[in-house]
Amino acid sequence: MNSPTTEIQKLVLKRVVIEAVEPEVDCGRFAIKRTVGERVVVQADIFADGHEVLGAVLRYRPCSEAGWQESAMDPLDNDRWRGEFRVEKLGSYVYTFRAWVDAFRTWSRNLLKKAEAGDNVSLDLLTGVGLMRSAAARARAADARRLLEIASEFETLSGADGGSAVERIQDDELTALVSRYPDPGAATTYSKELRVVVDREKARFSAWYEMFPRSCTSEQTRHGTFRDCLERLDYVARMRFDVLYFPPIHPIGRTGRKGKNNSVQLSPDDTGSPWAIGAAEGGHKAIDPRLGTLDDFKQLQAKARGLGIELALDLAFQCSPDHPYVKAHREWFRHRPDGTIQYAQNPPKKYEDIYPFDFENESSGELCEELKTVVEYWVEQGIRIFRVDNPHTKPFSFWEWLIEEVRRDHPDVIFLAEAFTRPKVMYRLAKLGFTQSYTYFTWKNRKSELTEYFTELTQTPIREFFRPNLWPNTPDILNEYLQNGGRPAFIARLILAGTLGANYGIYGPAFELLENRPLQPGSEEYLDSEKYQIRVWPLDRPDSLRDLIARVNGIRRENAALQSDWSLRFHPVDNDQLIAYSKSTEDGSEIILMIVNLDPRYTQSGWVQIPLHEFRLDPDLPFQVDDLLSGAHFQWQGARNYVELNPAGIPAHILKVRR
Amino acid sequence: MNSPTTEIQKLVLKRVVIEAVEPEVDCGRFAIKRTVGERVVVQADIFADGHEVLGAVLRYRPCSEAGWQESAMDPLDNDRWRGEFRVEKLGSYVYTFRAWVDAFRTWSRNLLKKAEAGDNVSLDLLTGVGLMRSAAARARAADARRLLEIASEFETLSGADGGSAVERIQDDELTALVSRYPDPGAATTYSKELRVVVDREKARFSAWYEMFPRSCTSEQTRHGTFRDCLERLDYVARMRFDVLYFPPIHPIGRTGRKGKNNSVQLSPDDTGSPWAIGAAEGGHKAIDPRLGTLDDFKQLQAKARGLGIELALDLAFQCSPDHPYVKAHREWFRHRPDGTIQYAQNPPKKYEDIYPFDFENESSGELCEELKTVVEYWVEQGIRIFRVDNPHTKPFSFWEWLIEEVRRDHPDVIFLAEAFTRPKVMYRLAKLGFTQSYTYFTWKNRKSELTEYFTELTQTPIREFFRPNLWPNTPDILNEYLQNGGRPAFIARLILAGTLGANYGIYGPAFELLENRPLQPGSEEYLDSEKYQIRVWPLDRPDSLRDLIARVNGIRRENAALQSDWSLRFHPVDNDQLIAYSKSTEDGSEIILMIVNLDPRYTQSGWVQIPLHEFRLDPDLPFQVDDLLSGAHFQWQGARNYVELNPAGIPAHILKVRR
Repeated sequence: MNSPTTEIQKLVLKRVVIEAVEPEVDCGRFAIKRTVGERVVVQADIFADGHEVLGAVLRYRPCSEAGWQESAMDPLDNDRWRGEFRVEKLGSYVYTFRAWVDAFRTWSRNLLKKAEAGDNVSLDLLTGVGLMRSAAARARAADARRLLEIASEFETLSGADGGSAVERIQDDELTALVSRYPDPGAATTYSKELRVVVDREKARFSAWYEMFPRSCTSEQTRHGTFRDCLERLDYVARMRFDVLYFPPIHPIGRTGRKGKNNSVQLSPDDTGSPWAIGAAEGGHKAIDPRLGTLDDFKQLQAKARGLGIELALDLAFQCSPDHPYVKAHREWFRHRPDGTIQYAQNPPKKYEDIYPFDFENESSGELCEELKTVVEYWVEQGIRIFRVDNPHTKPFSFWEWLIEEVRRDHPDVIFLAEAFTRPKVMYRLAKLGFTQSYTYFTWKNRKSELTEYFTELTQTPIREFFRPNLWPNTPDILNEYLQNGGRPAFIARLILAGTLGANYGIYGPAFELLENRPLQPGSEEYLDSEKYQIRVWPLDRPDSLRDLIARVNGIRRENAALQSDWSLRFHPVDNDQLIAYSKSTEDGSEIILMIVNLDPRYTQSGWVQIPLHEFRLDPDLPFQVDDLLSGAHFQWQGARNYVELNPAGIPAHILKVRR
Repeated sequence: MNSPTTEIQKLVLKRVVIEAVEPEVDCGRFAIKRTVGERVVVQADIFADGHEVLGAVLRYRPCSEAGWQESAMDPLDNDRWRGEFRVEKLGSYVYTFRAWVDAFRTWSRNLLKKAEAGDNVSLDLLTGVGLMRSAAARARAADARRLLEIASEFETLSGADGGSAVERIQDDELTALVSRYPDPGAATTYSKELRVVVDREKARFSAWYEMFPRSCTSEQTRHGTFRDCLERLDYVARMRFDVLYFPPIHPIGRTGRKGKNNSVQLSPDDTGSPWAIGAAEGGHKAIDPRLGTLDDFKQLQAKARGLGIELALDLAFQCSPDHPYVKAHREWFRHRPDGTIQYAQNPPKKYEDIYPFDFENESSGELCEELKTVVEYWVEQGIRIFRVDNPHTKPFSFWEWLIEEVRRDHPDVIFLAEAFTRPKVMYRLAKLGFTQSYTYFTWKNRKSELTEYFTELTQTPIREFFRPNLWPNTPDILNEYLQNGGRPAFIARLILAGTLGANYGIYGPAFELLENRPLQPGSEEYLDSEKYQIRVWPLDRPDSLRDLIARVNGIRRENAALQSDWSLRFHPVDNDQLIAYSKSTEDGSEIILMIVNLDPRYTQSGWVQIPLHEFRLDPDLPFQVDDLLSGAHFQWQGARNYVELNPAGIPAHILKVRR
C-alpha cells in the first residue's frame, strides 16, 4: 500500500486538468452516434497551474482493437482545445484525452524571450540539453541517436556561440523530435473513455415507406399477400424509397378482436389489428398465413434487395389473448385478483385485444431473454431494420440491454423508436441506444414551431444521440393540417419532411393518395383506418403525389447536403407563411436552399435573406439558383431575394445555389 | 456470480430514471458550497417508462452521520422535480435521490377514472387490497396493523358498496400510510452522492481590511510592531471591518532583497518584500523579530477578537534564498545546470529575491507534508482565515489535498484564493476547495462589464462553487479608474464592492486615504509601494473615507439582503453612467436598491426602472425609499423613477424599499 505522502506526490505531478469535454452525453454514461466515415470533432478545457506550454492529444480506437490512435489537439482561445478523428469501422469506438506540460516548448519559449532581452542564456542552453537527453532516454533508437547528437551540439554551442544555438532552437525537427516523447509520469489522462456508436450510412440517411401488406389487393374482401406485394415493390421503387416498413406480419388474435374503425362490433370479414399479435398459428416468430409463408417473405425480401429496398419489420412487444405465450407463460403477464390477465388500458380507454407484458415479475429475466430471441430470429431471416412500437411503455434498461446484445454481433441493425411521448422520455430512448427516433414534426406546422424544434434537434448537444426520422403521417396520426389543407398541404409536408430530415418516411398509399378523412371531427385517427381493415387503394389516381415523391427522393439521393442534418440553418423571410432553410456539405461546396409556403390556400411572397458570407457569395455579383423541383433557373444578387409560391402549383423551392 | 438473466431481471425492475441533476459540479467531481443554515435547492429530471405516478425523495446527511434524512420532492412540469434541505452543521454533507413507481397512487388514480366513467371497479378494489397488504408487510408494527385493518375494510366494501370504497381511496391518511412503504427493490437510487461543503457564515459575508503591520508607525525609519497595531485595531474596528489581513509576517530574506519601488539598488534602511519569506531567524512558522514575538501576536489577536475582528494571514508558499528550507531541502527547489537554484522568473522579468518550490521532484510528497504543517502551525495559533498568495502557480491537486486535510479537523478554516489569472484556472481553484476567490472586479469599471460579470458570478451554476471577494485595490493593483477619478471614484468603487459583494475588502490605509499615485504612467503599481518600504499614513486627513466606510459596513451589517449574493438583480437606467441593482432577502421581505454614478466627474441623472411585481409593489400607490447613506427619504411611484447623483457629494444611493 502506498503511503499518503507517495499518493500526493503522484498527484502533484499530474498538473494538467482536462474538463468540460464536448461531446460527452450525461457525464459519459451514454455514447454519441456517428455513421461510418463521419468525423468526431471534440473540444475540452485543458490547462495547468502556472504559465507553461502544454501539449495534448486526442486518443481513440475501435472497441475491437486494443491500441490507441492519437491525433494532436490544437489550442483555440480561453484554454479551450480542439481535436478530431474519423470513424471508419462499424460498431463502436472510444475516445479520451492525454495532456501534459511541455517542458521543452516552455524552455524554448522562455529562452527566446530572454535572448531577445539580451540576457546571457548559456546556462539555459544547458538546461535544454538536459531535456533533450531525457527525451532521448524515452525515445526509439533512431530518434534517441539523433537527439543525443543534437544535445552534444548544443552543449558545445552553449559554451561558444549562444547566438547560433538560439537559432537552432526554432528548428521544427528538434521540437517535433522532443515533443514526441513527453514524460509519461507527468501526463494527465482524462478520467473517462467516451463511447461512439458507429452505424452504417442508412442510420443517417433513409427514406421510409410504411405499408400494410394485406392491403396489396384489388378487392376489399381479398386479403393481400406477400406475393401481391412483389408487384407493389416496383411501385415503391419508382418512388425511390429505400426502406419498406411493414406493420406486424404475425398471426392476429381473435379474442377481443376489434372491428372496422376500432368497433367492438365484429363482422365475419374483420381482419383484426396487426398489433394484436399471436394466435393458434403462432406468435412473434410466425407469419400470418393469410400473408403467406416464410418462403414468400424471403422471395419478397430478395426482390426488394434487388430494387435497392430494405424491408423493415415492426417490433411490437405485446400479445393478443390468443398468443402462445399466454398459455405457456402466464407469469409474464399481470394478473387480476380473479385470476384473469389484465388487458391494456389507459383509463378509461380499454384495449381488450392486447395483453401487455409485465416486466415487474420474478420471471422477467426469462421474458427479456425470450424477446431477444424474437429479434435474433428475424435477424437470421435477413432483417436489419426494426421499427419499435411504443418503446416508452417498456423499461428503459430492457431496451438498452436488448440493443447492445443484438448489436454486439450485428452492428448493422437499426432500431427506430416509435415513441410519441414526453421529450425527456424520447431523448432517453435515443441515448440508451435507439438508432433513429420519431419526432414531434408530425405536429409542427408553423414556421416558429419548425424553426425552434429543428434548431433544438440539429444545433444542440441533443444531435449527438438523437437522430430524427420525420413522418408527416402515420397510421395513428392524420394531422389537422393534412385534414384541412388538401393537396398543397401534403406537398408542403412531404418537402419539409424530406429536406428538414435526412431520415424521413410516409405512411402510404394513404399519403400519396391524399387520404385526409378523419374518424370524426377533432380526431387524428383515420376513417376506415387500415389498422382495422383492408383498404383497396386507387394507385393510379391522377392527383397522386407519386411522381413528386420520386422527384424529392431523387433530389435527396443526388445532393449530399440533404443526406445529413447538422448543417441545417434557418434564414429570415419577411412573411410568416414562408419558411426558408438551407443545408450544405461539410466542405461547403454544395448548398441547397429550401423555401416552403406553409399556407395551403393562398399564394405567398416575400424577401428571403441569405447569409452571403457563409455561402461564400460575392455581394456584388449575380449568382444562379436552380430549382431542383421545377427545373427553373433564377438569377439572384445580394442577400435579399424575392420569392413567390402558389399552392396551386408546387408550393416550394429546392434551390441549388451555384457559385 | 449472477447469471446474465438475473442481471437484466434486476435492472428492469428499476424503472425510474434520475438525470440532469442541479446543482452538480462537473458530474459530481466537486462539492457545492453553502454556509450553515442555508438551503440546498435541487432539481432533477425524474421519469419512468409508461404513464404511472412516481414518488421521489431527496436524501441527505452530514458526512459525519451514517443515516439518511429524507425530504419529499415535488413534480414541476416536463418531468422536472424539485426538493430542498437545509444544512445545519459545519463540515460537509452529501445528497442523493431515490425515486420509484408509486403503485398505490397509480392504482387509485386509475380506479377513480374508471369509476367516473361508470365502470365496475370491484375487481380493481381487490387489487388495491393487495397493494395495502404488501405495504403492511414492509411497514412498522403500528402502521402495519392499521393497513391490514383498512385492507379488510376494502375487501368487504369491494363486494358490497363500490361507491363508498371509492370515496375512501381519496383519504389522505391511507395514501400517506401506503406511500411510506414503497417496494425497495423497485426504487432507483441516483448513481452519485453529491457533496456540499458547509462553511461558517463568514465564508459568505465578510469585510476585509488589508494592512502592512510594519507601517503602523509614525516615522518612516521606525519599523511598526504588533504592539503598534494594538492601537490601530480600534481604528479598523471603528470602520466596522471584521477581518484584518496581514501580508506575510515572517522573517524577510536579505539575499536579492529589493529596494524601494522594486529597485535593485538597496539602501541600508530597506526592509524588503514580506513575500520574500525566510531568513536566519526562521521561515514560514517564524515571526519577523522587527514585528515582535509570538506573544505580541497573540495579544493582538486577543484584542482583535474582542473588537469582533478576526486576523487573517497570508500563505505565500515560496522562499527567499535565505530561508532555512533552502539549506535543509535543496531538493525542493529547481536547480540550474551550474548547481545554483533557479529564482522566480516570468521572462524577461526576474525575481531574484524569491525561489519558487519545485513540485516536480521526487521529494514533493515531503514538501507537501511540510507545507501542511505550516498551515497547521498557524491554525494552532488560532488563525482560521488564510489569504493564499498566487495559488495558480502551484499544482491544483496540492491545494485540493491541503484544504481537505486541514478542513477535516478544522472545518471553520477559510481559504481565500488570490488568483488573478485566466477564468478557467480561477474557477478550478474555487471548485477544488477555496472558500472565497478574488475576482476581476478590480478591472470592471463600466456598467456593461459589471452587469455581465456579476450576472455570470451570481446567476449561473458558477455560484455553486465560486464565492467572490471584491477588492477595489490591492498592494499590487491601483486601477486606472482610481488613479484618475479622485475621491468620487474611490467612493463609487467602495460602494460597488460592498454591495455587489457580500464579501469584499480594501487595502488600507491607501484606500481610505485616496492613495492614487502610480509608479509611472500606465502602471498599476503604486508609487512608493508598501511592498518594498514602510509608509507613514496620515490617518486623520480630513478627506479620509473612514466614516463613509464605517457607514457602508454598518449598512451591510444591518441589512441581511446585503449579506449574500444570489439575489443580485440589475435594473435598467436610461443612462450608461448610472448602474442600478438590488439585493433582497430570501423571503423577499427586505429589498435594498443601489444606484451608483460611475462617472467621477459629472452629475448624472436618469430614470431607473424597477420590477414592481417582483418587489411586490402596487403600481398605483406611492412608496417610500430611504437612502441609508444620506438618511434622505424619497416618495416614489410606479416602475420608473428619477435619480440624480452628483460626484461632489456621495455619488450613490443605497435605498431601502418600504412597502
